Amino acid sequence: MNKELPIAIFDSGIGGLTVAKRLYRLLPKEKIIYFGDTARVPYGTKSAETIKQYAIQITRFLIRFNPKIIVIACHSVSSLGTSFLKRRFPGITFIDVINPSALQALKTTRNKQIGVIGPPATISSKRYESIIKRIDSQVHVYQKACPLLVPLAEEGWFDTDVTKNIISYYVDDLLEKQIDTLILGCTHYPLLEKAIRAVVGPSVFLVDASEATGIKVKKVLQQQDLLNKGKLKKHVPVLFFSDLPDYRKKIMSRFWNTQALLIKKASTGGKKNV
Amino acid sequence: MNKELPIAIFDSGIGGLTVAKRLYRLLPKEKIIYFGDTARVPYGTKSAETIKQYAIQITRFLIRFNPKIIVIACHSVSSLGTSFLKRRFPGITFIDVINPSALQALKTTRNKQIGVIGPPATISSKRYESIIKRIDSQVHVYQKACPLLVPLAEEGWFDTDVTKNIISYYVDDLLEKQIDTLILGCTHYPLLEKAIRAVVGPSVFLVDASEATGIKVKKVLQQQDLLNKGKLKKHVPVLFFSDLPDYRKKIMSRFWNTQALLIKKASTGGKKNV
Repeated sequence: MNKELPIAIFDSGIGGLTVAKRLYRLLPKEKIIYFGDTARVPYGTKSAETIKQYAIQITRFLIRFNPKIIVIACHSVSSLGTSFLKRRFPGITFIDVINPSALQALKTTRNKQIGVIGPPATISSKRYESIIKRIDSQVHVYQKACPLLVPLAEEGWFDTDVTKNIISYYVDDLLEKQIDTLILGCTHYPLLEKAIRAVVGPSVFLVDASEATGIKVKKVLQQQDLLNKGKLKKHVPVLFFSDLPDYRKKIMSRFWNTQALLIKKASTGGKKNV
Repeated sequence: MNKELPIAIFDSGIGGLTVAKRLYRLLPKEKIIYFGDTARVPYGTKSAETIKQYAIQITRFLIRFNPKIIVIACHSVSSLGTSFLKRRFPGITFIDVINPSALQALKTTRNKQIGVIGPPATISSKRYESIIKRIDSQVHVYQKACPLLVPLAEEGWFDTDVTKNIISYYVDDLLEKQIDTLILGCTHYPLLEKAIRAVVGPSVFLVDASEATGIKVKKVLQQQDLLNKGKLKKHVPVLFFSDLPDYRKKIMSRFWNTQALLIKKASTGGKKNV
């Protein structure tokens, strides 16, 4: 396979930009193609059947760019596992955004008390818990759905008192369980890291899904000898969005504040609508 | 036209249920059909072009039930005006959710200082302002987008200190302008009315879009002699949703807490997807 082929990343919206940004910094020689399904965001409140259908449509769109790897930077899709995509697209390597964090949390914890925060769909899927318990059944996993954190992050309320109050409301139960590791199970949460840190204190290890996924992608490309080792070219990341109103652009700039991006509107071309 | 035909109501999601509930109480003899596009909610962050396309698909779905009137209980669609729907569906009477509130606010204000709060798309459309100014150019309209209020309402944070703090952050500018009337420009906001009242104090008149729209629908049906004057039958409101996961059902119960509803999943059958 050609090492110069792009890395494709997709998400239900713009949260996955924290993953794309991390990859862009970690692997500056790679071409990055991103698709954000902003016309149908959020996925978290939708059914599994609908989410799978959307993920298949997006993958079909991304395959046109002949990517060497596809990163599922969406927790709602990742929580359904990757097998439904692997079955449908057998030639493609998929990396999801949940496995890498679960494995990192297992390495980090000393007292085997791990907390997970995320949007309702991610939490109710219990995906983190099942991955972690399969590897070490002695670990206790405490989960908490935090539906208000995505809107707070999108609105730029990163480090306000209101944000800290809401985070306290969500994580106090987990802290009572003496967790020593907290998985930030949503690609929006790195924006709130300072507020989360202020609430949980300095002794809890925070697992950032974007960081863990970036490291995993690099490792897989290394193993497959697919890292682009050529001269450093300035590849401009290309970001596609299924809807792109001004309001969304403003929010986007809070996630990846650079002018050096190529932003386009695109349709997945899906035939079936709901 | 047959007076026993149903009243159809649609919204991008579940907010319009506050309108449907109001109508159900105001006009207990009427059949009510509701469509909530929960698979594609929210519309507020989408472009005008996309929102219009969705509204047309939903109207096509509702017309199968031969409604005597269609209520657009969605501020994002209403902010685009009703003419694009009237042109496409010339035989149908459409009532939007913005006009009735704008007219009520004009009746209520004494000092001609009117405030409007709503989701970003509703506010940036400046629809309230243009309707009000067209009737009375002396009125000052002060608008404020409040993106966090819908998530707070959906999560049931109706009357918490956090909610009041966020409301204060949004409306303090409006209160400084000495508004005597505040339009709640979102069908979710009746759920937060107690908290909004606590922040704005007793002297500001609150215009509830759901209430104003309900009264308007009754008036139009009266004028057209289409009110169902038969014996009171127990018509069970039928609510269709394009997606219906458990999480959404739980939120829905905060909007209309009755078991006496028929809830179904439905597709608009739209061909074009994004």
